[in-house]
Amino acid sequence: MPLPLSGKSRVYAILGDPIAQAGSPGLFNRAFRREGIGAVLVPIQVSADGLDAILAAFRAARNMDGLVVTVPHKIAIADRLDEIGPMAARIGAVNAIRKLPDGRLLGENFDGAGFVHGLRRRGHSLREKNVLVIGAGGAGRAVAHAVLDERPCTLGIYDIDRGRISQLSDDLQRHASNTLVSHAEPDAYGFDVIVNCTSLGMRDGDPLPLRLDGLDQRALVVDIVLEPSTTPLLHQAAARGCPTHEGIHMLDGQVEEICRFFGLLDERHDD
Amino acid sequence: MPLPLSGKSRVYAILGDPIAQAGSPGLFNRAFRREGIGAVLVPIQVSADGLDAILAAFRAARNMDGLVVTVPHKIAIADRLDEIGPMAARIGAVNAIRKLPDGRLLGENFDGAGFVHGLRRRGHSLREKNVLVIGAGGAGRAVAHAVLDERPCTLGIYDIDRGRISQLSDDLQRHASNTLVSHAEPDAYGFDVIVNCTSLGMRDGDPLPLRLDGLDQRALVVDIVLEPSTTPLLHQAAARGCPTHEGIHMLDGQVEEICRFFGLLDERHDD
Repeated sequence: MPLPLSGKSRVYAILGDPIAQAGSPGLFNRAFRREGIGAVLVPIQVSADGLDAILAAFRAARNMDGLVVTVPHKIAIADRLDEIGPMAARIGAVNAIRKLPDGRLLGENFDGAGFVHGLRRRGHSLREKNVLVIGAGGAGRAVAHAVLDERPCTLGIYDIDRGRISQLSDDLQRHASNTLVSHAEPDAYGFDVIVNCTSLGMRDGDPLPLRLDGLDQRALVVDIVLEPSTTPLLHQAAARGCPTHEGIHMLDGQVEEICRFFGLLDERHDD
Repeated sequence: MPLPLSGKSRVYAILGDPIAQAGSPGLFNRAFRREGIGAVLVPIQVSADGLDAILAAFRAARNMDGLVVTVPHKIAIADRLDEIGPMAARIGAVNAIRKLPDGRLLGENFDGAGFVHGLRRRGHSLREKNVLVIGAGGAGRAVAHAVLDERPCTLGIYDIDRGRISQLSDDLQRHASNTLVSHAEPDAYGFDVIVNCTSLGMRDGDPLPLRLDGLDQRALVVDIVLEPSTTPLLHQAAARGCPTHEGIHMLDGQVEEICRFFGLLDERHDD
């Protein structure tokens, strides 16, 4: 298959620092080819002091329509845009920027939507479930807000930092309708869905992010860690007969959500 | 063959306006794949008032190492760089920019070198030949200077604008050693190599760029027009038994020269 790149290609980029580890160039370019989209997404390694220059160039480049933003720029870039979408406003971080037809830049965050979309594609619903989110950092915040919008019965939040639990719980309360948001303990007992949003499991010898003694074997255990794809948490959950869901699905689900945001796919939903 | 694009890819771009017609993305990306280079070249459409923003972003992007520059920015961009190579200085135009290890930007022009390299690869030498260059605009200037460095016997210059002939001839004289630079007429008589550097032949009904009555059937007839690949000039020359050389070879030859300039190939030469 020839490289689908010509002078006519629309150009997208992912901004981060470092960038070598980013999976988005591979995932987006495969999606572009699969969907027959004449576009390419390239990695751009830029430090915080180069963000303004990159955004000015993005505004000037007439064949560039969108940016994906990754660590460490998701928070800092939000203040430099013309408009912020509702989810980005809730979590205070942007991971995708679209150039609108009038040239203004709109930022939104799809980390959580990608997470939920990834679950849906594998047949998992969060509606009326008791969900535990472990970790209230950047990823945990995005996941918790998106989980909340799926109207679970309860949403428990745990972080090793109690201040973070309070902060995120307060933020979630403002958007909760019928969901009970609670400060939780790192314990699987009583939950239908458990999501690890910490980095525990990436390194050899990491402890488990929570106690599994009370884990119900019908509970869905989810990890957002990408590498290894099967963390010790997922391995132990599977050994107890639980369904599991790997981190890659959050990224996969997000590619489609961001392509829609960029206007590259029509608005149909597959759920 | 998978799209050779990951977070580790080095990124190059071609700047122009318009950009949809540019052949460089296709040619460079094929060359990168052929040589196993982990890089991608993308088109960037930018107008003159966006050039400063693009250059600032290029300086800030730590995985961007080089730019290719096409119409209409070749002259305007030269003043914005830190250093200019010898050929760019001679013709007052830049078509490739390399980010040096210390971050400074070096501009050079490979239009002429690509032209000569394309000829060499097809076995054609200009040494001690009588060469006629038709057209003394941007492309003609680049071609004439590179032809001169091949030490032809005579180098005739013709343009419909007499002032341009004088200007280019004077510039060439400063660099000529044993070559006789002359103001020529648009007539093939007496020349061993004829190069059309005008756009005549691109549109239906264009007149030939010169008279062919006196064309020697051993003369090499060259066109730099890319589309159509066989212009009426080349068609008529071939009908008279002359060897011909199409515009694509100038672009092909240049890809290799620019890859060398970017440090992507070792310095060996194949001639």
